[in-house]
Amino acid sequence: MKIINTKEKGIILILVSLLFTFCAYAQPPKTLAEQLGFPKDSKLLIIHADDMGLAQSVNAACIKAFNEGAITSGSIMVPCPWSLDMIDYIKSHRGMDVGIHLTMTAEWDLYKWGGITPADQISSLLDKNGYFYPAVEALGKAAKAEEAERELKAQINKVIESGIQPTHIDTHMGSVLANPELVKIYLRLSEEYNLPILFPKAYIGWLPPEISKVLESKGFLLDNLFMLEPSMIAGRWIDPYKKAIEGLKPGLNQIIVHIGYDNDELKAICKGHDDYGSAWRQKDLDLILSSEFKDLLKKNNVILIRWGQIRDLMEKN
Amino acid sequence: MKIINTKEKGIILILVSLLFTFCAYAQPPKTLAEQLGFPKDSKLLIIHADDMGLAQSVNAACIKAFNEGAITSGSIMVPCPWSLDMIDYIKSHRGMDVGIHLTMTAEWDLYKWGGITPADQISSLLDKNGYFYPAVEALGKAAKAEEAERELKAQINKVIESGIQPTHIDTHMGSVLANPELVKIYLRLSEEYNLPILFPKAYIGWLPPEISKVLESKGFLLDNLFMLEPSMIAGRWIDPYKKAIEGLKPGLNQIIVHIGYDNDELKAICKGHDDYGSAWRQKDLDLILSSEFKDLLKKNNVILIRWGQIRDLMEKN
Repeated sequence: MKIINTKEKGIILILVSLLFTFCAYAQPPKTLAEQLGFPKDSKLLIIHADDMGLAQSVNAACIKAFNEGAITSGSIMVPCPWSLDMIDYIKSHRGMDVGIHLTMTAEWDLYKWGGITPADQISSLLDKNGYFYPAVEALGKAAKAEEAERELKAQINKVIESGIQPTHIDTHMGSVLANPELVKIYLRLSEEYNLPILFPKAYIGWLPPEISKVLESKGFLLDNLFMLEPSMIAGRWIDPYKKAIEGLKPGLNQIIVHIGYDNDELKAICKGHDDYGSAWRQKDLDLILSSEFKDLLKKNNVILIRWGQIRDLMEKN
Repeated sequence: MKIINTKEKGIILILVSLLFTFCAYAQPPKTLAEQLGFPKDSKLLIIHADDMGLAQSVNAACIKAFNEGAITSGSIMVPCPWSLDMIDYIKSHRGMDVGIHLTMTAEWDLYKWGGITPADQISSLLDKNGYFYPAVEALGKAAKAEEAERELKAQINKVIESGIQPTHIDTHMGSVLANPELVKIYLRLSEEYNLPILFPKAYIGWLPPEISKVLESKGFLLDNLFMLEPSMIAGRWIDPYKKAIEGLKPGLNQIIVHIGYDNDELKAICKGHDDYGSAWRQKDLDLILSSEFKDLLKKNNVILIRWGQIRDLMEKN
């Protein structure tokens, strides 16, 4: 039996150390799924209701969907007439996962809102009647960055000051994607409030490099976002959703639904607009409450998660 | 036959002239009813719906009541979420008799509004969240007259600029009666826009002499105003109304009703408030649509009129 001498021992020790170091560095970083405690290649899915606070009909539908576990997250439109009602419910029903649906547009013809900041301080965001512009294009052209930031902070602050800890921020009709300056604000708000933002990886290529670099460093961008669009509607209401769910890949996925009860209030709000209108929202609600949809999620081994889990991860890191 | 001489002729002529002049002056002035073409002692009655624009439920009820002839006039709350919807309907359905329900209070807990003027310009009217105060007392103490006038003019102007000719102005929860300075504004607005205002004669005694004198000179003050109050409710819903209608006297009378459909939207708005709440408004609506109520009006020889008739008279004079 050969006895190794002190010099050889030293060399072996160094080699072993190097090997450990190499292994540590060579180990691929943990996926978001792993960081959340799920298997590496999990298909994580957030089922998200937009437009909370828009109307009583929408609030009632979101409450129903949350209570039935049919949505995992939602986000609230702070400037809308029914936001106080929604905030009040969320405050007294902890556990609802709710973010801020940053709002700088008002798209319905006869049911309008402006900002929650005094109009003189955000005049570039408002039309001559004091309402937000109906479309993102007009907003993108007119919005002064500092005024947009003022209003968006006010929206987040109002929710926080009410006693709710929001889980994420996203954006109504893509308001904050209306121009690159607004995207920068969106990123700053994420940093400042330490909240994840909804941003699909696929959109990064459209942005100026100074913005895309910052975004790429984020660990919580969406690998895939699905939102039903009018052009996709064919056959049964579930069909495009089925296609989307069956095509889900490992990573962070989100499905956005627009839910509400097709009643007199919502019909009157959406009058003249079939897309994302009153009947549409009832169909989305019926869909997510159906056992067929729930079975679809089960069959496809989807792991439902909430934005709050991602926010908690951000806080830890 | 005695022939009268020239001197005597002159005296007779003077006497006859004096007699005619005396008779002209001694003739009692025409009553409002006569000026409107009705018999002198007519019991004129305006059946008036308050709070148009408050909610979809209220708008729909007011439209139903107008179309059935169950109300003759109504007034709109311009700062409320559903005012645009109401204005749009009025514009395309000429003949609806609509005034401005001057609004400086927001009384529901979770469904709020502020002014339509930029908040910085009317800060004395608003609470820390930018909403109107819920009660008239707080408004009366805080309101700066020039800010109140700015907001109230904006409310009237918005309706006029939309293409509607309002028929009168009145006031939500008595906002403009909250202090004497506000009453003066109310009178100035009536002069400036040449619109009649709702003001019951019985209230005149409460006012400082410089205001009551101006009011007394108006020809269109209400001889009697009836609005159902919680303390009056006993027996059937119609009972206090029956008492009021059977007790009507000749002159200008108004009954104010609060109508709406007792649906999810209105229930949620009025939650926690039974007085003038959702069920209350359904009962008022059912009442005025009932044949029993219509028969009651007929039996009591009431002449239904609109505020527009009084406005037209003001314009003529």
